[in-house]
Amino acid sequence: MRPSPSCSSSCPPPLSLPLSPRRSPGCGSESSSAAQKQEVRDTNTASDPSVMAHMLSFYLSYLLLLTLSLSCVVCVCVWSSQWRGGFAWDGSPLQFNWHPVLMVTGLLVLYGNGAVLYRVPLTWGQNKLPWKLLHAGLLLLSLILSIVGLCAVFDFHNEKKIPNLYSLHSWIGIAATALFALQWVFGLGVFLLPFAPPSLRGLLKPVHVWMGGGILWLSVAACISGINEKLFFVLKGGSGPSYSDLPSEAVLGNSLGVLIVAFGLVVMRILSNQDWQRPDSSPEDLVYTPLLQEENE
Amino acid sequence: MRPSPSCSSSCPPPLSLPLSPRRSPGCGSESSSAAQKQEVRDTNTASDPSVMAHMLSFYLSYLLLLTLSLSCVVCVCVWSSQWRGGFAWDGSPLQFNWHPVLMVTGLLVLYGNGAVLYRVPLTWGQNKLPWKLLHAGLLLLSLILSIVGLCAVFDFHNEKKIPNLYSLHSWIGIAATALFALQWVFGLGVFLLPFAPPSLRGLLKPVHVWMGGGILWLSVAACISGINEKLFFVLKGGSGPSYSDLPSEAVLGNSLGVLIVAFGLVVMRILSNQDWQRPDSSPEDLVYTPLLQEENE
Repeated sequence: MRPSPSCSSSCPPPLSLPLSPRRSPGCGSESSSAAQKQEVRDTNTASDPSVMAHMLSFYLSYLLLLTLSLSCVVCVCVWSSQWRGGFAWDGSPLQFNWHPVLMVTGLLVLYGNGAVLYRVPLTWGQNKLPWKLLHAGLLLLSLILSIVGLCAVFDFHNEKKIPNLYSLHSWIGIAATALFALQWVFGLGVFLLPFAPPSLRGLLKPVHVWMGGGILWLSVAACISGINEKLFFVLKGGSGPSYSDLPSEAVLGNSLGVLIVAFGLVVMRILSNQDWQRPDSSPEDLVYTPLLQEENE
Repeated sequence: MRPSPSCSSSCPPPLSLPLSPRRSPGCGSESSSAAQKQEVRDTNTASDPSVMAHMLSFYLSYLLLLTLSLSCVVCVCVWSSQWRGGFAWDGSPLQFNWHPVLMVTGLLVLYGNGAVLYRVPLTWGQNKLPWKLLHAGLLLLSLILSIVGLCAVFDFHNEKKIPNLYSLHSWIGIAATALFALQWVFGLGVFLLPFAPPSLRGLLKPVHVWMGGGILWLSVAACISGINEKLFFVLKGGSGPSYSDLPSEAVLGNSLGVLIVAFGLVVMRILSNQDWQRPDSSPEDLVYTPLLQEENE
């Protein structure tokens, strides 16, 4: 378990290196400086086959994540462009088509990739600041795409005199986006800007991580209910195909849903695996180091 | 972070007590026997106000979980009985009404409550076996209710010549139930029966926990898409109310969806808070102690 910032003066916990076997420094050693951590990590990486095994298993999961990311984006783009007629921004159903593409790309794929960024070992042992900025930047892009995706559907509804925000899908989707916006502002204020004291950072970090996971799952639930709803809307039977006959569009939409769920599970696996956590959870890492002056760990 | 079973011979990690501030035993102390753990925990509980604060925050979260559990069950029962005409088992739409009630009660509420059982401090410092059996029993009941809930909808569909398993909702729901059945059998074989060696238990426990969380979120996504779909089916407008006018049934169904999401988030919060974990994650707890002979921790 992680040491709490408040007890750093007591006997320190064993230095536990991600992607390496658990090790304990000599007891009584109070120091766990960045240089020492880096040295031990480098030694482990060079000599220990289990480090390579952990590294390999992480990168296989990460490769799976990237494959699922690409598959989700391709699948939703093909659905909107090939089966639903393509894109426009004119209040027509072609404008609606931006909605699934932007929500899946922004609120799901970019969001999930931004969330796991710190788990990529390539980002360790380097100045954390650029990765922090990339984390915030990816999530800001994700938030902007989500908001544009919401605008697409609101515009379309308003043009067609369809009421907004009545379905459960819309309630979950709007809650996910609103919580995401709050989470981004909260993250900026507490973890990037130099206002929050270390004790507050330590206290709020688990909440930030939990809320991040929760928003991802709200996003997955919104995507699943939205795809399901859309397929019932457009595959009504009569002169066209019926959803219950599972025409190719239904198989594509359902497969997109399965890919989305698989993506969510892989993100959750990467986030929850303690062996893959960035080694920056010690108390000193919660202390703010000013932008552009942050030291290497 | 948690020590790995393989390094128990090195300097032990600090004894970290859930619901208590992190403490370190004297360095060089190899012993972390059950009696010692119990003694330190009792001392902490009696003397440290922060233990009480942690305990209070856990029980407030747990009270919220129980309130949400009851609210979900009441809400889905009221919907099915008051708005949808009640229950029967005769292939009519009244048989369908068992489906949402049993899935929400079984695959969501009982499942979530079974998952967080070990986090309740009342279960600590006692023989673990009865709680292990209760965990397995609650989840078995949850699985049985889910399967009966699936039978209800399959029977109804077969009677009305409606195809089964074509919608994304049904794909996600059936995947959740199938994975849940696999997870239960896997849990029985690895963690309850005396066949698996401690190393395998240690290796598979994180997978069990991750999969458990994943199944919960599949269940949430299935519930949300199912409620959304049902409300579009039954509130079609024409001579009756339309979903887009948000009649009282729509508000009730959407509120049930919001309660379900809140329930999922609270379960996730309880499971992810490391301060609330049962103190049984040390290597010796992964060693099997035979049924009915398990010692107190």
